Amino acid sequence: MYNRVYNFSAGPATMPVPVLEDIAKEVLNYRGSGMGVMEMSHRSKVYQTIIDEAEADLRALMGIPDNYKVLFIQGGATLQFAMLPMNLLKNGVADYIVTGAWSSKAYQEAKKYGKINLIASSKDRNYSYIPDCSDLDIAPDADYVFIAENETIHGTTFWTLPNTKGRILVSDQSSMFLSGPCDVSKFGMIFAGAQKNIGPSGLAVVIIREDLLNRDLDPKVPTYMDYAVQSDNGSMYNTPNCWAIYVCGKVFKYLQSIGGLEVMEKMNRDKAQILYDYLDESKLFHGTVDKRDRSLMNVPFITGDAEKDAAVIAATKAAGFENLKGHKSVGGLRASIYNAMPVEGVIALVKFLKEFEAN
Amino acid sequence: MYNRVYNFSAGPATMPVPVLEDIAKEVLNYRGSGMGVMEMSHRSKVYQTIIDEAEADLRALMGIPDNYKVLFIQGGATLQFAMLPMNLLKNGVADYIVTGAWSSKAYQEAKKYGKINLIASSKDRNYSYIPDCSDLDIAPDADYVFIAENETIHGTTFWTLPNTKGRILVSDQSSMFLSGPCDVSKFGMIFAGAQKNIGPSGLAVVIIREDLLNRDLDPKVPTYMDYAVQSDNGSMYNTPNCWAIYVCGKVFKYLQSIGGLEVMEKMNRDKAQILYDYLDESKLFHGTVDKRDRSLMNVPFITGDAEKDAAVIAATKAAGFENLKGHKSVGGLRASIYNAMPVEGVIALVKFLKEFEAN
Repeated sequence: MYNRVYNFSAGPATMPVPVLEDIAKEVLNYRGSGMGVMEMSHRSKVYQTIIDEAEADLRALMGIPDNYKVLFIQGGATLQFAMLPMNLLKNGVADYIVTGAWSSKAYQEAKKYGKINLIASSKDRNYSYIPDCSDLDIAPDADYVFIAENETIHGTTFWTLPNTKGRILVSDQSSMFLSGPCDVSKFGMIFAGAQKNIGPSGLAVVIIREDLLNRDLDPKVPTYMDYAVQSDNGSMYNTPNCWAIYVCGKVFKYLQSIGGLEVMEKMNRDKAQILYDYLDESKLFHGTVDKRDRSLMNVPFITGDAEKDAAVIAATKAAGFENLKGHKSVGGLRASIYNAMPVEGVIALVKFLKEFEAN
Repeated sequence: MYNRVYNFSAGPATMPVPVLEDIAKEVLNYRGSGMGVMEMSHRSKVYQTIIDEAEADLRALMGIPDNYKVLFIQGGATLQFAMLPMNLLKNGVADYIVTGAWSSKAYQEAKKYGKINLIASSKDRNYSYIPDCSDLDIAPDADYVFIAENETIHGTTFWTLPNTKGRILVSDQSSMFLSGPCDVSKFGMIFAGAQKNIGPSGLAVVIIREDLLNRDLDPKVPTYMDYAVQSDNGSMYNTPNCWAIYVCGKVFKYLQSIGGLEVMEKMNRDKAQILYDYLDESKLFHGTVDKRDRSLMNVPFITGDAEKDAAVIAATKAAGFENLKGHKSVGGLRASIYNAMPVEGVIALVKFLKEFEAN
């Protein structure tokens, strides 16, 4: 009824229709308040309820332990790449595992602030797999070990977390956040840009164990970038991205309404299986990632011939599938099939690819 | 028809109804694209057109000279308080004029990064006026002179810009941005949080003279906070706050449709006059700011008796006027009457205050 396309964008990405319908109704007047959410003082009771509910719903969904703080911060994962070392480096040492474009960016940024060790990498095969992280050379004084748990561009996921030998694990979960259950207690900190799996851009969710809040920060760290300041002020040291928090809150309630993260993961596995099964039997296309390390969210695939790839991409667009062009560092196609991509979209895509292959 | 209240919030603040109506219609499908703006890849053609038009419309509205860059950055004015000195300090010296809560915050933040001189202040009378800035002790090597051109909490405006004796002027225009014409060429840099006069929170607009982009930045500055990086990447070094840019773009077009900033200023003057005229004749209320320094945007006023103030505030709320409580540092009431507050709202408020006074 809205003439929507199947949008396979890697982010910002497709959102649940019931959430969008709900938002559209409230733009001029949120629940009898006489104003829209974009117009509300962040210090008002009505907005405080919105942000409090968003946090409570996220805590319930993920089962976040009480000794973790939930922060809503602007600047995306990119600002987190700097905030993380600025706040968590005390010994000045951290270990990074680089498995793709995003962990590589995080690693480069962290190097501004300390002795950053590259302890594992899958660059040798263009980040198409997750290296064995069961017995890495973890620095005994590492303040943390970093991973990008799902690589949006390269399409890998850590199905087994690294053995950090007692050091703190920090994960960028941007492109897999809330795609399934997560045992938060295994992490010192998790962060995620909202614009892939949970809402609009302009917001990062940070989940941080409270003992990691640094009360002895270098005074040259911008006040905005101090996790302790953000935490002490309930993410409202200054005006937060009120709209994005509101929208993400609606997505959290939507995920609860469909049964929570176990149900969501089942749906994601079923969706991804349809696409991977086709890629494994296809004579034309093949996935670029080692099977055991495949992401449920981002599925890169190629024909092996750049001209054919371009022809397929053009054909998908003409058929009403959007944003299937792969990132230039991998080439070919990439289907991002986040939580909000309906299974019908994946079925339709596979049907289309099969027909393309047959012709 | 939407049962909207008159919302005098200092920010986030009331927005134009035609803009909100337009947005509500596009939440699920932006102009036949098959997706909403929150779901669009920021690298897509359809979104590139949105951000390009927003910039072009802002340039046209303000008459921004070609040698200035327009940037859309997350983190609000608060992140700018740090970005500004991190980027513009070359000699390590800047002069700050402190006229209220926001310039005070900017000054405190800047002190982390250099020798920051407090060259004028109106703290002696609780920031109720703008000091004479015609012949200040400007440091000959000051990298810039800073003002908050309109103080949101204290309700003052610089109707005459400081004599910077040839040094660069930087202005925080958050709570007056686009309230009237502005000669951008008088400034080295202007920034403004969007959530007061132009759109939703989570965005700052930065207008910077291109020769001030610092190509020799301290490597410890987070990449996100490098104006040159933001500029070189068209504000898309990472995913920007796509939604806020879209909404602000609509407000820019709306301002053009009503005749531009000269017309807007006339409307703002007329609105403010109605309220100030009443305050000047009232026996119960009086404005807290020296007449010649009064803001057209933020109007603080008090009875002089905290109990009476509280009674008035409660009565306004009961009568359907929202967010009139003054900031605790000034007390009393504050009416923020930004661009989007209709004159009818001010007339209704004055009528109410008159009746309250009569009883």
